[in-house]
Amino acid sequence: MPMGHDAPLTKEMILDAAEQVLRRFGPEKTSVVDIAKALQVSHGTVYRHFPSKAALREAVTERWLVGCISAPLEKIVSEGKGSATERLRLWLDTLRKSKRDYFTRDTEMFAMYAAETQESVETVKAHVNHLIQQIATIVEQGIQSNEFKPGQPEVIAKAIFMATSRFHHPAHANQWLAEDEEETFQAVWELLLRGLV
Amino acid sequence: MPMGHDAPLTKEMILDAAEQVLRRFGPEKTSVVDIAKALQVSHGTVYRHFPSKAALREAVTERWLVGCISAPLEKIVSEGKGSATERLRLWLDTLRKSKRDYFTRDTEMFAMYAAETQESVETVKAHVNHLIQQIATIVEQGIQSNEFKPGQPEVIAKAIFMATSRFHHPAHANQWLAEDEEETFQAVWELLLRGLV
Repeated sequence: MPMGHDAPLTKEMILDAAEQVLRRFGPEKTSVVDIAKALQVSHGTVYRHFPSKAALREAVTERWLVGCISAPLEKIVSEGKGSATERLRLWLDTLRKSKRDYFTRDTEMFAMYAAETQESVETVKAHVNHLIQQIATIVEQGIQSNEFKPGQPEVIAKAIFMATSRFHHPAHANQWLAEDEEETFQAVWELLLRGLV
Repeated sequence: MPMGHDAPLTKEMILDAAEQVLRRFGPEKTSVVDIAKALQVSHGTVYRHFPSKAALREAVTERWLVGCISAPLEKIVSEGKGSATERLRLWLDTLRKSKRDYFTRDTEMFAMYAAETQESVETVKAHVNHLIQQIATIVEQGIQSNEFKPGQPEVIAKAIFMATSRFHHPAHANQWLAEDEEETFQAVWELLLRGLV
């Protein structure tokens, strides 16, 4: 979608174009000039909004993490349907399903996110903290209703997130399609639940 | 250590040379010819023992996994000192420590092992099953002595191994040097223990 030079250029418009171009060319081959071309502006104009290609990549990944991963999970936490156990299981299943779906269907974006995770960029760290906070809310509700044993919700939430890394950290993506994946997750889930309930 | 053409060439000698050459040149740049040269034999002689460079790499990794990772852990299981909880903790700490040490001090070998893990070669799968079997022995002893809750030792062992992936799977190596790593592991350990004891 090229646009005229005189249209007001917002960060959101740059991210839309960047996402499209990054998907088409891949993170390595995409340059800021390519993104500027898609917007029909000079690369200087893009640089006024984002200081580097790395910053652009990070912003595109962040928008994706928030919109496609965190937001649907946040809904599960805030709607508060069912028991804390049911909510925690739905939360983990939803996280796993969306990661798996993006891994198989949105390869370019997933590869970019996997690379940013490996480089441990700030936005990914913030995303992880945000997810742990969501689990902590579920755990706290479970403790308050006496469904879960007493404990520090944030410490337990971090433990749950870390103990399930194998099922949502992008470095393990290849293993998610294994035949016995559900069975493996079920074994971990049951062990964790025995510690919680 | 070049050797004469007439010395009997054993698999072990080829693996010794292969390990040295792989360490020096790295897995990508090493060829079977390089390994044959180090042994002062023709590459055909090496091929008679190992059908491909991949088979050689796999055999070197396997020998390393057994000798440097599994064997010290096996000792903890067979000596049977302390409670099952203490033994399980020592087993996990030993696994984590050896992985971390090799990651920081034996970079070439660790990189080769990480690559073989990513490609999910048979020897790495067998290694993982062997480690899970070791945990299962500890869990079974813990159940029999009424220290652990009843359950299926092999399923619980697999769950413990998977739930601690973040702390021993090579894809997470960069995270092992984080300042709060011990604290993160402690949180997971306490949650798992609440499920076991």
